[in-house]
Amino acid sequence: MTTQWSSATLQRSLGDPTVTYPLWPPMTSGCPRTSTAEVSYPVEVDYAYDQVDPFLFATAAGRGGGLDRWAPLLPPLAAPGLGEGGTPLIEIEAGVFVKDESRNPTWSHKDRLNRCTVSAAVTTGAPGVVVASSGNHGASAAAYAARAGLRCVVVAGPELPPAVDSFLHAYGAVVLPVPWEARWPLTRKIVERTGLHPVSNLTTTHTGHAFGPEGYKTIAYEIHQDLGAPAAVFVPTAYGELLFGVWKGFTELRSLGLIDRLPRMYACQPTAAAPLAEAVRRGVPAAHVTVGHTEAYSIVSPVSGYRGVVAVEDSGGQVLELSDAQLEAAHGELARAGLWTELSSAAGLAGLRTVPDLDGPVVCISTSSGFKNRSVGSQSTKTVSPEWDDVRSRLHAAGIRD
Amino acid sequence: MTTQWSSATLQRSLGDPTVTYPLWPPMTSGCPRTSTAEVSYPVEVDYAYDQVDPFLFATAAGRGGGLDRWAPLLPPLAAPGLGEGGTPLIEIEAGVFVKDESRNPTWSHKDRLNRCTVSAAVTTGAPGVVVASSGNHGASAAAYAARAGLRCVVVAGPELPPAVDSFLHAYGAVVLPVPWEARWPLTRKIVERTGLHPVSNLTTTHTGHAFGPEGYKTIAYEIHQDLGAPAAVFVPTAYGELLFGVWKGFTELRSLGLIDRLPRMYACQPTAAAPLAEAVRRGVPAAHVTVGHTEAYSIVSPVSGYRGVVAVEDSGGQVLELSDAQLEAAHGELARAGLWTELSSAAGLAGLRTVPDLDGPVVCISTSSGFKNRSVGSQSTKTVSPEWDDVRSRLHAAGIRD
Repeated sequence: MTTQWSSATLQRSLGDPTVTYPLWPPMTSGCPRTSTAEVSYPVEVDYAYDQVDPFLFATAAGRGGGLDRWAPLLPPLAAPGLGEGGTPLIEIEAGVFVKDESRNPTWSHKDRLNRCTVSAAVTTGAPGVVVASSGNHGASAAAYAARAGLRCVVVAGPELPPAVDSFLHAYGAVVLPVPWEARWPLTRKIVERTGLHPVSNLTTTHTGHAFGPEGYKTIAYEIHQDLGAPAAVFVPTAYGELLFGVWKGFTELRSLGLIDRLPRMYACQPTAAAPLAEAVRRGVPAAHVTVGHTEAYSIVSPVSGYRGVVAVEDSGGQVLELSDAQLEAAHGELARAGLWTELSSAAGLAGLRTVPDLDGPVVCISTSSGFKNRSVGSQSTKTVSPEWDDVRSRLHAAGIRD
Repeated sequence: MTTQWSSATLQRSLGDPTVTYPLWPPMTSGCPRTSTAEVSYPVEVDYAYDQVDPFLFATAAGRGGGLDRWAPLLPPLAAPGLGEGGTPLIEIEAGVFVKDESRNPTWSHKDRLNRCTVSAAVTTGAPGVVVASSGNHGASAAAYAARAGLRCVVVAGPELPPAVDSFLHAYGAVVLPVPWEARWPLTRKIVERTGLHPVSNLTTTHTGHAFGPEGYKTIAYEIHQDLGAPAAVFVPTAYGELLFGVWKGFTELRSLGLIDRLPRMYACQPTAAAPLAEAVRRGVPAAHVTVGHTEAYSIVSPVSGYRGVVAVEDSGGQVLELSDAQLEAAHGELARAGLWTELSSAAGLAGLRTVPDLDGPVVCISTSSGFKNRSVGSQSTKTVSPEWDDVRSRLHAAGIRD
């Protein structure tokens, strides 16, 4: 396949925007010149915006084409796609829209990131990718690697949920569940020894892959096409990559003169694991916290990254901390609207419910499918009697009358 | 919400096309005038094609808008949508395209049908819907009913897979697992006694809901937009509703002068449950068979319906019978292309692999996500040692060298 034209020019440090690097190789351990022993600063991608067709947004019609239609504003998409992106925006009540990211190839938002990071692996000639993950990120990386004919190694935590295990193996990934404390050192060692391209984080505070959040920008482009600029976007947040990507997409739309104002970016974290909230409170680029219990396993992290701070502060947004009870309530609300999500994915709507008086339509990003909840499969409805009197009483209990 | 304009005019019998019925109420037990004790004939929907905007197909650009953009050629869409349809067509090898229907709101093709059937329930003022299903159909009906504010009763078989149980309960459905032989009589009784609108079959040979396959037509419209008319379409088949819907969509495109030839329609059934193959072989409208063992649970049926015969014979297609080994091989092939599907969903590609020499591009419809396989969760990779020598030997075994 021919890689479509990209206007990407170089990599730029978030720690100091005057510090730049060539576009290749992709920075997978943040910015070495500005990072310290305590804080790692991420790197982002710059583009020659003045060389991009000014009608790109006018002609990239409807939902067709996935990420490829935005190729000029993304790093080179050298890995073949799976029709990622182009997810629907569903109005669940007047002015409240849900961006349903469970409609991606591996049923989560991570596919937008992995199209970009696996493309980097292809371009650099790596034999495959390695990812530290026990969930959506690993499965998505495995799918894109399979599609590109690359190997994928997933370094997982112990007690990998069995459904995720099936998911990862389906794509032919090498799955290595190891004790928690061994995950990051082992991932680093695999990168050093084998040349596999890392598509997850390698640093003390979160930086991840320089190209990853670029894929998430397309969520902003799609929201803009369907709705214009909303007043606010509510984003389930662990490291803040998704949050930053969506924010960056809207800043580009503003620079290109397509919108007047940025939506406020609301980072939605579980109270039990809210390092970004801690960083913003303390006015530091990133923070570490002790993680408590929450069922929202996809947005649990003991450490944040500087990207999240940038997105929240620049947009006039906020970090919201949510209890599992609040997440459960929003999860139920989404299901009653016909959207069965991961518990983590309901954090956006749960966050919205805590913020009064927003000036215009709002978007809650729902990241993934209900099939990925840990509780799936624990339900077991017993066979019931088909006698009419028995059925009738069950129907009556549910408010259905004969 | 305002229902968009529909050109639907009346219902017409497949048993005798001169027999018609008004559009309302929807026929949910086939055509009473032509059906016999042995064979039930389905009913389909007619449209005033000459009143439809001739530029409908030219202006319904890209993937945007789900089913709503085709509203003029569908029964009235009175139930709110969930962004169903608009699924991507992915080229897994030169000329072989997979239509990935796992990208629908409940992650299967059934959402296209249920948008139409739940709309019928809304229009007729029913308090809710009832569906006999232990899988995708039930979950989809439950989601659309929830979205429309209607109740949903799912009459399931015994030993409902636990993941499906979670899925159905998430949307607030009343789940009634009963012994197999009680499913159809109980469904009928619930319809008679409660006025719930049936969205699955009620007759001896399969007829289902008159409006259901109309939703599947949109798959043909989308394939046409992305690719034109393929040489053939391979469809996982149980009752033949999906097969018929896709065929009907292409016949409409031909009538409207948008394509010259119909794709050959290949019905792909498990050898263990191939009633349509039996009906075509014997030259009868529908057949009953004894079902053997197959893991492809979503396309297991002991009985076929006349719709399947129409689609296969009119298009010059064929019914293909596939062993579980053939299904597994195609399932593996899809996963290696980055598409993790239900085993049943791989029947399309498995069928293609048995047919040599097709004159042009072909489409295999993949109906649903790998998360719905019965085997999901049975995998359990043990925690491994993070010592480099141990990891190294695992990587070597997978062909990854240091």
